[in-house]
Amino acid sequence: MSEEHIDLVSEPDGAAGGKPDTNTGGGSAGELEQLRIDLEEAKNRGLRALADLENFRTRTNRQAAEERKYANLDLMRELLPIWDNIGRALQAVEKSHSLETLTEGVQIVHQQFIDVLQKYHCEKIDAQFKPFDPNFHASIAQMPNAEYPANTVVEEVQSGFKLYDRVVRPSQVVLSK
Amino acid sequence: MSEEHIDLVSEPDGAAGGKPDTNTGGGSAGELEQLRIDLEEAKNRGLRALADLENFRTRTNRQAAEERKYANLDLMRELLPIWDNIGRALQAVEKSHSLETLTEGVQIVHQQFIDVLQKYHCEKIDAQFKPFDPNFHASIAQMPNAEYPANTVVEEVQSGFKLYDRVVRPSQVVLSK
Repeated sequence: MSEEHIDLVSEPDGAAGGKPDTNTGGGSAGELEQLRIDLEEAKNRGLRALADLENFRTRTNRQAAEERKYANLDLMRELLPIWDNIGRALQAVEKSHSLETLTEGVQIVHQQFIDVLQKYHCEKIDAQFKPFDPNFHASIAQMPNAEYPANTVVEEVQSGFKLYDRVVRPSQVVLSK
Repeated sequence: MSEEHIDLVSEPDGAAGGKPDTNTGGGSAGELEQLRIDLEEAKNRGLRALADLENFRTRTNRQAAEERKYANLDLMRELLPIWDNIGRALQAVEKSHSLETLTEGVQIVHQQFIDVLQKYHCEKIDAQFKPFDPNFHASIAQMPNAEYPANTVVEEVQSGFKLYDRVVRPSQVVLSK
């Protein structure tokens, strides 16, 4: 936005009336006229500033909407090869009928999926055997446990994920009691 | 941003000097003083406008960066159940050793994947038997074809996708010649 520049306060060339503190007391008609000119100019610069601010707002909001619209494009581009690989695994099994081959293919896809999410800062929440953290864990059950103190995650029923500091979904956990 | 309001041009209460066109000719010392006051006020309003514009810019840029950081969160949240289903299919096959069950599970995942992309406006590019469109199709080969005119997509080697009007990746196609 550095192309924005609004000159609100600079004096018009040779405007003496612009510095009234240097010249007090009743002034000449010329000085009066100059003051009127300066005042009009200051007001006009003010009006231009308002117009510039409005233009800046409009442009900024338009850019933000555009960015929002295409925000997922890069992630989508990286997800498509995973979708391709699922398709290839299905095509291959039609010919091979090999459970092993399909299983291996699906295991690879399962890992690729996590790798892409991770690349985009979507990380698994650490839960197993950690103390319960209501910000990142959702407790779905409690069970007695001899090994761990109360309110420790003794089982992770569903992995949770966070994007940077924000929870995408909490880990669903069973706590010791 | 409607909370932004900058009053640059309104007159201070009872400012006669603010309307010079209603009062030409040499003025009194009082009028001169009033004009000086009005000029200072107009300039101060101008300075406040500049400050407000800078604050608006700073806030806008901060908001844009924050939005960019978390832009993929919703899509990620919808992708995770697909990742879960891949994991479940793998767990199930460990017990069942059923090729049919795994194949069905993977077919479902393959479709869910496309459904989520589609929900986020990432759509397959229509290519098969369409005239070649260099904006959406990438030609990887040409082959003689009796049925279709030249430069028709006679085979889609890899599906292309677009997000609204933008290409996520082009369709890789074979053209008739």
